[in-house]
This record gives sequence, C-alpha cells and structure tokens, in this order.
Amino acid sequence: MEGLGNDYIYVDAITQNISYDKDWITKISDRHFGIGADGLIALEKSDTHDFKMRMFNSDGSEGKMCGNGIRCLAKFAFDHQFTNDTHIRFETLSETRIVDLKEEDGQITGAIVDMGKPELKTSLIPMKSENETFVDQPIEIDGTKILGTAVSMGNPHFVIFVDQMPDDIETLGRKIETSSYFPEQVNVEFVEVINHQHIKMRVWERGSGETFACGTGACASMYASYLTKRTGDHVKVTLLGGDLNIHLNEDHHIMMEGPATTVFEGEI
Amino acid sequence: MEGLGNDYIYVDAITQNISYDKDWITKISDRHFGIGADGLIALEKSDTHDFKMRMFNSDGSEGKMCGNGIRCLAKFAFDHQFTNDTHIRFETLSETRIVDLKEEDGQITGAIVDMGKPELKTSLIPMKSENETFVDQPIEIDGTKILGTAVSMGNPHFVIFVDQMPDDIETLGRKIETSSYFPEQVNVEFVEVINHQHIKMRVWERGSGETFACGTGACASMYASYLTKRTGDHVKVTLLGGDLNIHLNEDHHIMMEGPATTVFEGEI
Repeated sequence: MEGLGNDYIYVDAITQNISYDKDWITKISDRHFGIGADGLIALEKSDTHDFKMRMFNSDGSEGKMCGNGIRCLAKFAFDHQFTNDTHIRFETLSETRIVDLKEEDGQITGAIVDMGKPELKTSLIPMKSENETFVDQPIEIDGTKILGTAVSMGNPHFVIFVDQMPDDIETLGRKIETSSYFPEQVNVEFVEVINHQHIKMRVWERGSGETFACGTGACASMYASYLTKRTGDHVKVTLLGGDLNIHLNEDHHIMMEGPATTVFEGEI
Repeated sequence: MEGLGNDYIYVDAITQNISYDKDWITKISDRHFGIGADGLIALEKSDTHDFKMRMFNSDGSEGKMCGNGIRCLAKFAFDHQFTNDTHIRFETLSETRIVDLKEEDGQITGAIVDMGKPELKTSLIPMKSENETFVDQPIEIDGTKILGTAVSMGNPHFVIFVDQMPDDIETLGRKIETSSYFPEQVNVEFVEVINHQHIKMRVWERGSGETFACGTGACASMYASYLTKRTGDHVKVTLLGGDLNIHLNEDHHIMMEGPATTVFEGEI
C-alpha cells in the first residue's frame, strides 16, 4: 500500500504470527531482491485501543509512527474486515492516533488523521537555544543566517520559507540536519507559499535524505505557515508524492487528510 | 521474480488477456506507486516453440531478450505447470533461446541458458572501425587511449580489462556508451581477472546506467577473457547481484548458468 508514494508492506499480525526479524524485514524491503518497500507496518491487537500499529524501517529498525502509513493501516484494517467502523483508534509507540476513513463509491480512498498538538518549546523539540520558542528566527550555518521555525510533531522539524523552491535541498538540508542546534538531528522542510490556502514543500528527512512525502513534516510546515500568518488554518500541502489537506481543529490539533492506496496483495 | 537482482513482474499471458499498455507497465513497474520492478515479462503461447517470451522495460518500451529474465520465465512456466519438461525452447524477439532448468531438493533454483554464438565482426556489432574485429585494441576517449574488446551477444558490448575495479565506472562508462565509435550506443563492461576461472565485472548499460547484473554483458566479458587467454573456457563471473557460471560448449555457443528466484506472488 502507498500514501503519497510512501510505500510499506502491510501485514496482518492479528491472525498471523509475525517475528519482526531484522534481517527478514531488510530482505523483504529490498527493492530488487525482496518485495520492495520503505519498510513493514503491522496491524496488531491492542488491550486499550482498537488496534496497535507497529512500524519498521527498511533497515529493520523500529519506528514510532508514520502519518502516511497510518492512513493505509486504517484502510487495511477496514478492507480486511477487522473492523466495520470507519473511526479507528490506534495505539502507537508515539501517542494515540485517531483515524477517520474516507469513502468514495464504496471504496476507502483515504483518511483524516488526528496528528495531535504541535510543540514549539525548544527544550522539548529538542533544539539548543536560549529562546523558549523559535519562530522565524535565524540559525547560522557556515556563517550564513537562515531564518526558520522549529516545531515538534513528535519528531523535530525546522521549517524554512523560500521565495522559490531551490533545485538542491540536499546541501543545506544535510548541514542543518546535522548541525549542533539539534542534538537529535532534525527534519528540514523547504516551503514555498503559493497562496493563503496552499503551500509547496520538499523535505529532507533525518537519516533518510529527501523523500516523496513526510506527513509530520507537512503538518509542521502548515503550522509554521499558519503561525507566521503566511496562510490560514486550512492549507493544501503539495509534496513530490502528491497533496495533503491539513487543518487545525477547535482543540488546536492538526488534522491531516490524504490518500491511501492498495497497490497489490500477495503471499510470500 | 529475480535473477541476480534483475527483477521483473512475471505474468501468465496464456490464460490471461494482457494488454501491454505502456502507461500500465510504467505504473506497475514504479517502485513507490506500483509493484516495483525493472519491467514486465510475459509468458505467451508460440506456434513454433514451447513458449514465447515478451519483455518490457520499466518505461513500457519492448525489449528483445533478457538473460536473467529468461531463467526466471522458464521457472515460472514450470512452477505454474504450463510444462513438466525442464528443457524449454523459447521464441524471443531476438533469436531462439533454449533453457535447461536446474532442480535442487525438488525446487527449481536456476537454469542454464544457451545464449548463442558471440559475434566479433565490427560491422555487425555495430562499431565504426576499419578493423574487421576489435580485440584488445585502443579507442580514444578525450585524448586517452583505452584498450577494449567489442563483442555482440545480440546487443553491443565493449569489454575493458582493469587491474583493479575502479570506484567510479559512470564517468568513463557514459563517455564510451555515447562515443561516435558505437552508432547504436554500447554496453560497457569493466572486468577484473581474479584467476583463470574467475572474473569480476561491473556493467554500465546503455540507456540504464549501472545495474546489478547484465547476462549478455557477463557472456561478452567471459568471451573477451577467453579470447585474450586471460581465462579458460569455464568462468565464474561475479557481478554486484551475484554469480553466473559461463562456459563455451562444443558448438562454440555461450552457456550461462545462474539463479532464478520467486520472491512473492500476488494479484493486482
């Protein structure tokens, strides 16, 4: 299944016994010798929620949550009749995530995910700074001042607004990712504002480099745009892999809506 | 299925009606939005042979033959019980190809493919040269002389022997691929001789760049090694994707033995 080109192998770990063996996950994630994917996401039973999400990167290491992945996992649970409710509560290694499936012509085509509240406190992002928050302020990279906004969506982001999307985001992305400002490294978003309801974004993900889409990065970018009054509170975010519609709800939670697609089903 | 990491989507086009629509092949070959593969290979009926092989690249264009692919296609035909013969004759857009499956513990694990006779005539490769053949002779690239051997295995190859495998094969590979010596471009092989029975090879494929493995390139490299007495007529060729065992038979045909693996089966 894929959400904006972020593709995982989804497995039923409720009726099947899945080992999460690191070598096995690495092998099946390989794009030439295996099935080929960004990793593996498993649907597990939960004692406290409807289901539990487990996710593993293509190197076999366990991740906490993936915004594009959880939309697909909710569709997976529904399409495989583990639930007939379109409102699904997931336990994750990060916080609880609530997903509402979207139906079109009797098919689940996408979902809205409650991504929780953004965090601006530099101590919690974490970012080394004397300021309590860091909104449209400068960091210094190789003697050059770069304005940006630091936001945590459970993981750290640094959002930079640009007049025009640069061709190369790697050079600066990598330098900021590994700079001393961010003790746990950082995801770097480059954002071009199209209008008050629409932004374009490219993302440099810590540990991965540029990717087609990053759900938490899109939320951080929307929130930074809203905070700095570059946009309103309902924003379409265009990424390389496609579009997300993101808005703030009345509880100040970030709600992310996007597609979820089953590409093929198989046996290994 | 994959052979040395060369992975295709294999389809039964005998009982199914497959359209070979360019956009559809491009879409399902995409590694993030589709199944992900180097392309599609179909098993068709043949009026004159056991089966017909059709192959399509990931951009939807039709290819002639693929040495790693035809081993997998033979396994596919056998495993799906379209034949119970392990000796299979294929019609291809290139020449007839005869494949003998290898069985281990009741499983088909690989195959030997008769890759036909190598062609050395420069006019047939095609290569622009006043020489009738081009064996261990120099071409000039950017004022530097580079020794190599030109061989056709149905497609053109230029084999270069190196003392040690270079880190970068792209710079020179690309220059030779597109040089005026080769009116239809050329595949470039970099070969390090380990001993009289073993060579290492990296390949720069025309139109694709570096790949894990190129069956015809391995055959051309083995033949160039044999011709120039760097090896005997039975050679193990180590590629990035794994090993092939290649030998010349009594009819001077190149026989290529290698693995064929089913990774997963599915429905789309």
